[in-house]
Amino acid sequence: MMEASETWNRLLAHVRETALLESTAAMLEWDEHTGMPVQAAEYRAEQLMLLSGMIHQRRTDPKIGEWLKALADSSLASEPNSPIGASIRCMRRDYDKHVRLPESLVKQIAKATSLGQQAWVLARKENAFQSFRPHLEEILSLRRQEADLLVDEGMTRYDALLDQYEEGARISTLSDLFSRLRDALVPLIHEASLPKNQPHSSCLAGLFDLDQQRSLSRWVAEQIGFDFSRGRLDETEHPFCTTLGPHDHRILTRYHSDSFSSGLFGVLHEAGHGMYEQGLPAEWYGTPAAAAASLGVHESQSRLWENHVGLSREFWQWCLPHAQERFTNLQQVTVPQMVKELNRVEPSLIRIEADEVTYNLHILIRFELEVDLINGSLSVADLPEEWNRKYQDYLGIMPTSDAVGVLQDVHWSAGLIGYFPTYTLGNMYAAMLFDAAERDIPDLKARIQIGSFLPLLEWLRDRIHVYGRRYAPMALIEKATGHSVTSQPLIDHLDRKVRSRSGASERS
Amino acid sequence: MMEASETWNRLLAHVRETALLESTAAMLEWDEHTGMPVQAAEYRAEQLMLLSGMIHQRRTDPKIGEWLKALADSSLASEPNSPIGASIRCMRRDYDKHVRLPESLVKQIAKATSLGQQAWVLARKENAFQSFRPHLEEILSLRRQEADLLVDEGMTRYDALLDQYEEGARISTLSDLFSRLRDALVPLIHEASLPKNQPHSSCLAGLFDLDQQRSLSRWVAEQIGFDFSRGRLDETEHPFCTTLGPHDHRILTRYHSDSFSSGLFGVLHEAGHGMYEQGLPAEWYGTPAAAAASLGVHESQSRLWENHVGLSREFWQWCLPHAQERFTNLQQVTVPQMVKELNRVEPSLIRIEADEVTYNLHILIRFELEVDLINGSLSVADLPEEWNRKYQDYLGIMPTSDAVGVLQDVHWSAGLIGYFPTYTLGNMYAAMLFDAAERDIPDLKARIQIGSFLPLLEWLRDRIHVYGRRYAPMALIEKATGHSVTSQPLIDHLDRKVRSRSGASERS
Repeated sequence: MMEASETWNRLLAHVRETALLESTAAMLEWDEHTGMPVQAAEYRAEQLMLLSGMIHQRRTDPKIGEWLKALADSSLASEPNSPIGASIRCMRRDYDKHVRLPESLVKQIAKATSLGQQAWVLARKENAFQSFRPHLEEILSLRRQEADLLVDEGMTRYDALLDQYEEGARISTLSDLFSRLRDALVPLIHEASLPKNQPHSSCLAGLFDLDQQRSLSRWVAEQIGFDFSRGRLDETEHPFCTTLGPHDHRILTRYHSDSFSSGLFGVLHEAGHGMYEQGLPAEWYGTPAAAAASLGVHESQSRLWENHVGLSREFWQWCLPHAQERFTNLQQVTVPQMVKELNRVEPSLIRIEADEVTYNLHILIRFELEVDLINGSLSVADLPEEWNRKYQDYLGIMPTSDAVGVLQDVHWSAGLIGYFPTYTLGNMYAAMLFDAAERDIPDLKARIQIGSFLPLLEWLRDRIHVYGRRYAPMALIEKATGHSVTSQPLIDHLDRKVRSRSGASERS
Repeated sequence: MMEASETWNRLLAHVRETALLESTAAMLEWDEHTGMPVQAAEYRAEQLMLLSGMIHQRRTDPKIGEWLKALADSSLASEPNSPIGASIRCMRRDYDKHVRLPESLVKQIAKATSLGQQAWVLARKENAFQSFRPHLEEILSLRRQEADLLVDEGMTRYDALLDQYEEGARISTLSDLFSRLRDALVPLIHEASLPKNQPHSSCLAGLFDLDQQRSLSRWVAEQIGFDFSRGRLDETEHPFCTTLGPHDHRILTRYHSDSFSSGLFGVLHEAGHGMYEQGLPAEWYGTPAAAAASLGVHESQSRLWENHVGLSREFWQWCLPHAQERFTNLQQVTVPQMVKELNRVEPSLIRIEADEVTYNLHILIRFELEVDLINGSLSVADLPEEWNRKYQDYLGIMPTSDAVGVLQDVHWSAGLIGYFPTYTLGNMYAAMLFDAAERDIPDLKARIQIGSFLPLLEWLRDRIHVYGRRYAPMALIEKATGHSVTSQPLIDHLDRKVRSRSGASERS
């Protein structure tokens, strides 16, 4: 019989070697999205296919099952929230999912989603939902089969999918959280929205030199606490954040010369993700103790810095002079004007361009639709009509085509079902965390006003980052904030925002 | 019995998968030298160690030996210069070298050179040759053991080392080539050199905006034929060129704001390497048919573009106006002034800063010393004194310290013995190739003068690039130029340069 500690060491060495390969694949992908020569794409795909095959083989190695079995009753596993105990629990969970799914189904899904994404690109381009329809039907059918294999006692099919992205989240909890949010937001948006078609003059119109945008964004990322000795900031088509090692976190944004804010807010968002990754305990890298708790918790970190910090009056009291140093066309802009402009609320068709208030309704619509698609009460054939009906009901606008309606997101074509709700969960967690941080750091807003962000970052590190996956996401939020997950802080936050905005509007 | 074609296909699949891992390692190294966060170094080393272990295992896989044995008498192997026949021959050669070396010796060398490089860094910093001495002695002893295992009929120990970098090169040939070169260069340099300590005023003094340098260098690389759809240009501490796939070639340079030429000539040099790699037949990627013929042939491509093109009057007749567009401080400079300044000849202590004429003497000194070190006629203890004596004899200058003398290069500390001569072989090949290209392309210089570089590049592709390793390096040069390898074209080239320079000097 091997000692438990020896078994653990073997397991640890195994997952760390897997992590070396995973981070190498992440390197190849980072490069693919930053500046890889155009003709290199095909070979890069071959490199990634080889690595992902090796990674898959390692993750499903039967030795892992044996080691985990041997560790199950050991003292190492007895503290479920200790780094090792939690790692064993999470590895068990991940490994069980892997072995429940037959390779044939995994391959079918990989093929269907690969074809699905190609079909989606074309369907969106040609505004032809019908050509995408059979692909989505196939993907839904396969994901239902997958869910049936993963479902545990007391879970619905949709729960089984959701649980892959947000451990422990259930449709029952989400329906409750989300319907409260919907009931509060729909009237709020009606109140906040500008009358339609009213032309709007912006204090942020004009051109903004790209190098100055780069300089401001990098400086802001540094000031809020993104550690450039352990990270980089680069440019790409679709902003993202990736981790290439315990001390190598890379954020990417995109600058537009006709937008002052899109590149900067991309950086605030991605730096939020990056600082979470930088706050995970490096000594456990490769294990669940150093992995993000969930997609929702990850999103809470990006949204907290982007929305609660970046869109606040206090942030701009500090930041505006630094922006004005770089951009002459901002020299007449006041803090209230900047804050009002950045916080404009207006229903729009495209999720990724939506403002903070309307954004969540885009998510709720997708959540309600995908739940019905999975449980079979909505057919794919009826999806576009239902999509448009909900946009009319919740946001008061009607998509002018499927291309800017049901076909706008890549997610479903990639098989990502149960993923959308984590965006709004992230917003809820962010509001709860910022409330709790304000309570624990009485001068938080005064600190932000002078560009002192460390107290907030340290609070997040102590309450969220250091724990990795040691607690289930909602338990972690409850532990950090003292409250079980609720939509109220997000509703209050958005409500205050809309009211102060109307107020500001009246004063202006 | 497997069909030969089936055996070949298995071998091909094997080496192609190895190449996927090798190019992935090259990706990690490229990133390490371009912008990896400082704290990421330790983990990056772990990633590279894992990959190099996997690569080593694949390269020494006994299956390769079996496949090669099965192919030895097949019709596929019967044409030694066909892509497949040559690949089988080269793979046999490489595999035999691998299996002749016991793993214990390989590991000892890896350890000694790793420690050796660390000791060298420190010794150079502190000008303390004695602390490096035992490391060099150990490295030499191990490399002698290695040579004894690799030596074939009719080879000396040094030949066995040299043959790893330049297939088929022998000390006897090199001694002859190099002594002719030395006998011609030593008097030439005396003739060319400016009187010592004479202050020198340069038309290239001043500061040169880095962004303008980047813009000019990139544009020049594009004009001479480096394909940016299959490559990138980046910045790093020590310029190099690396290949990440059949269509992904990356060159790196370094700009200095107080030097107009160092960044640009770094690009000309590395683009020469890069265009060679881009000219290798992509369809054979991963096999010897798509690998560079040797270090010397590689260097010939970089030196040809850097020295024969970049330092020529015709090049500057074309390039100067483009440089003047970007740099106001060049507006008064004439083509003769520019060419004269770039072609200054002056003995100096540091190899990598040497001009085109004196450069080769730096190499000859190292060649003569390392031959004596390997055959035992020179002891490491006596090395610094012998180094200094040769600098005095050949270049007329005496190193002021070992740090700028025998300790200046990393090569020996890294175990690279037999490597230096490939630099001067590259210069010889370049002069031969440029002569032959001038003969075959009668208006070559007129073409360069109008920025038309494609005829030269296509000539190099047809005569050198497409062949990969299908011919031994000196045979390839002979095939391309119609002459066996000789130092005369290089001597003539340098002689013309010095004479026209003196002429220019008299006229100025």
